[in-house]
Amino acid sequence: MARIVMKFGGTSVGDIDRIKNVARRVKTEVDNGNEVAVVVSAMSGVTNQLVDWCKQIAPLHDAREYDTVVATGEQVTIGLLAIALQELGVNARSWCGWQIPIMTDGTHGKARISTIDTDDMVGRMRDGQVAVVAGFQGLGPDRRITTLGRGGSDTSAVALAAALKADRCDIYTDVDGVYTTDPRIVKTARKLDKITYEEMLELASVGAKVLQTRSVEMAMKHRVRVQVLSSFIDAPGTLVCDEEEIVEKELVSGIAYSRDEAKITLVRVPDQPGVAAGIFGPLADAAINVDMIVQNVSEDGRSTDLTFTVGKSDLERARKVLEEARGKLSFERLIADPNVVKVSVIGVGMRSHAGIAQKMFQTLASESINIQVISTSEIKISVLVEEKYTELALRALHTAYGLDAA
Amino acid sequence: MARIVMKFGGTSVGDIDRIKNVARRVKTEVDNGNEVAVVVSAMSGVTNQLVDWCKQIAPLHDAREYDTVVATGEQVTIGLLAIALQELGVNARSWCGWQIPIMTDGTHGKARISTIDTDDMVGRMRDGQVAVVAGFQGLGPDRRITTLGRGGSDTSAVALAAALKADRCDIYTDVDGVYTTDPRIVKTARKLDKITYEEMLELASVGAKVLQTRSVEMAMKHRVRVQVLSSFIDAPGTLVCDEEEIVEKELVSGIAYSRDEAKITLVRVPDQPGVAAGIFGPLADAAINVDMIVQNVSEDGRSTDLTFTVGKSDLERARKVLEEARGKLSFERLIADPNVVKVSVIGVGMRSHAGIAQKMFQTLASESINIQVISTSEIKISVLVEEKYTELALRALHTAYGLDAA
Repeated sequence: MARIVMKFGGTSVGDIDRIKNVARRVKTEVDNGNEVAVVVSAMSGVTNQLVDWCKQIAPLHDAREYDTVVATGEQVTIGLLAIALQELGVNARSWCGWQIPIMTDGTHGKARISTIDTDDMVGRMRDGQVAVVAGFQGLGPDRRITTLGRGGSDTSAVALAAALKADRCDIYTDVDGVYTTDPRIVKTARKLDKITYEEMLELASVGAKVLQTRSVEMAMKHRVRVQVLSSFIDAPGTLVCDEEEIVEKELVSGIAYSRDEAKITLVRVPDQPGVAAGIFGPLADAAINVDMIVQNVSEDGRSTDLTFTVGKSDLERARKVLEEARGKLSFERLIADPNVVKVSVIGVGMRSHAGIAQKMFQTLASESINIQVISTSEIKISVLVEEKYTELALRALHTAYGLDAA
Repeated sequence: MARIVMKFGGTSVGDIDRIKNVARRVKTEVDNGNEVAVVVSAMSGVTNQLVDWCKQIAPLHDAREYDTVVATGEQVTIGLLAIALQELGVNARSWCGWQIPIMTDGTHGKARISTIDTDDMVGRMRDGQVAVVAGFQGLGPDRRITTLGRGGSDTSAVALAAALKADRCDIYTDVDGVYTTDPRIVKTARKLDKITYEEMLELASVGAKVLQTRSVEMAMKHRVRVQVLSSFIDAPGTLVCDEEEIVEKELVSGIAYSRDEAKITLVRVPDQPGVAAGIFGPLADAAINVDMIVQNVSEDGRSTDLTFTVGKSDLERARKVLEEARGKLSFERLIADPNVVKVSVIGVGMRSHAGIAQKMFQTLASESINIQVISTSEIKISVLVEEKYTELALRALHTAYGLDAA
């Protein structure tokens, strides 16, 4: 017997038949003798409709009212799933965020969970009742409904699993696990049985959108074992867990990529203290995140080129902010390039093994792919290359690191 | 300055443009210096969709989960209307039933309001904030969401007006007031400026579906002045109020009709004690409401005919119940007739004036309309006639009682 949290996203509960299907999956876990809490999202499409209505009335709207509106999506799903479970003879009840309560801070629209009071729920789960919990929502200090931001249901599930001291948090999605790389691009990609929190975090941050970054951070912090698996296929998925639980660690676990970034180069920036702050300050003020940054060595000792990446959707805004700041900044020219891709090699093994970066550079060089920018973290090496090389780079690296399926 | 509750039904908030229109009407009252609370229903069609989803999963479902699902309709509207008001520069906030709270009994699906705690809300209204309140919903003793049954938003509005000691409760609908009779049938029908609670109750109970019966009962009990008016036309409506507030009382206020009833005659029932109980007991057990009842005088001293009406939708079920009980009951024949209409003359004036019933019988007789059943209350006379006479009877009575517009 185990205590597990199961989480189903919008596609998995997208219509009445799928909700019934989810009920059957939950029943299986109950029949296996497990204590079960289920966290669900809104039926797919519903949240978009609700957000759209808010925007139609006022592009800039009170986040508290927005939360009141959009939180209804999950509330519909919990009621329907509870009914579907009861119809299968499973004892179940729904819980809105405010009923548990899942307390959050007061940041409406993207609140953070502070505490979850599970006393009542645990008692009922021990008595065999399935808790059907609305993801994505909580209760703020103002006693009003808060939401956690898009994709927040993953975070709800992990936070609930932590509060319930659950043995596992199963996140059901439309993919059947975490792959060594995108299987739509690399046919030899393999599903991983296990991956560490750290690696999963890096994967999420570079665009492998299986789990929301915040949910992985929370899982890592509270050591919640998270399994990613398919709601449509009946097979084990990928377990995201502590490094110690992985006996045979790979040097490299996966190759990720992100097409969401754009490159900006400021040509002939003065090579003097305070210049970087003068550039990145206005961007930060405009809430534009800057990712990779490279400053070339100054050739003449007086000026240099500065290259960095921003989100593709922020590119025009970033260009405007920098042009407007041109009175204070001085640069000869701004070159914007959206045709780039960030390719990342990820693996906890690189902490203790040298040569992994070198293999990446060699592999790309042998395919004549020019590296524009490089950045590294403890368990990740990322390079920026021309977007047209995405597929070629992924396949070459996947093979080079020995990740291809046998 | 007055304190008013405004209530808008599903059609009035049916899409984003209509919600904006409602916001403008509310702003007008605020600009006039009034303290305003607004009660809203779900956008038209939404509740039906939610109910349908519940039924698709299980025809018989947990009423607590049903309430959780269907209450979301109103929650969406309050958030959207609050945003629309803010967009017009009006200070506003939304309130779910559980946030106020509107406490109800535990009868999920058709709960009754017990108490409303308005302390917080009144303070905010005094400070100029419009309270946007979800109709139809409350919080049960089990701390779960309850709903008041279809059309319950009228009841929410009147109950809130009573709790807030509001000067008036304005119910905005798709008609512009209460008429002397159905203006689609009688072109000379007049809109009434005022009508008493008692008359409105009788009108509601015989099929003039302007206000939900329960809301009128509640208004009468708490002496809440209710105005019925159009959300699309800018004109005064009809005030439902205490008899004392109406200076010039008409003898007859209106002529109502209901096509929702069907007639059952049991031929040659034994004329002995206990027979009526033997017939109406099984019907009551099957939750079939019986309305008008007539027992003819026995011709032979041993048997008689018994005639009564049931809801048209209950007719087949009633027939089945009576046929099944035939072992205990004895009657020669059951005649069912759905082609009937109940026509009612309503007016508080008939308490003190004789001859009103006589005028009804004479008028119908002069049009050769045969009266099948008669029933009366203190302020109402109802007759059952063949359905084909509906229009003729209404027009003749409307003229006879001097109700035609000048």
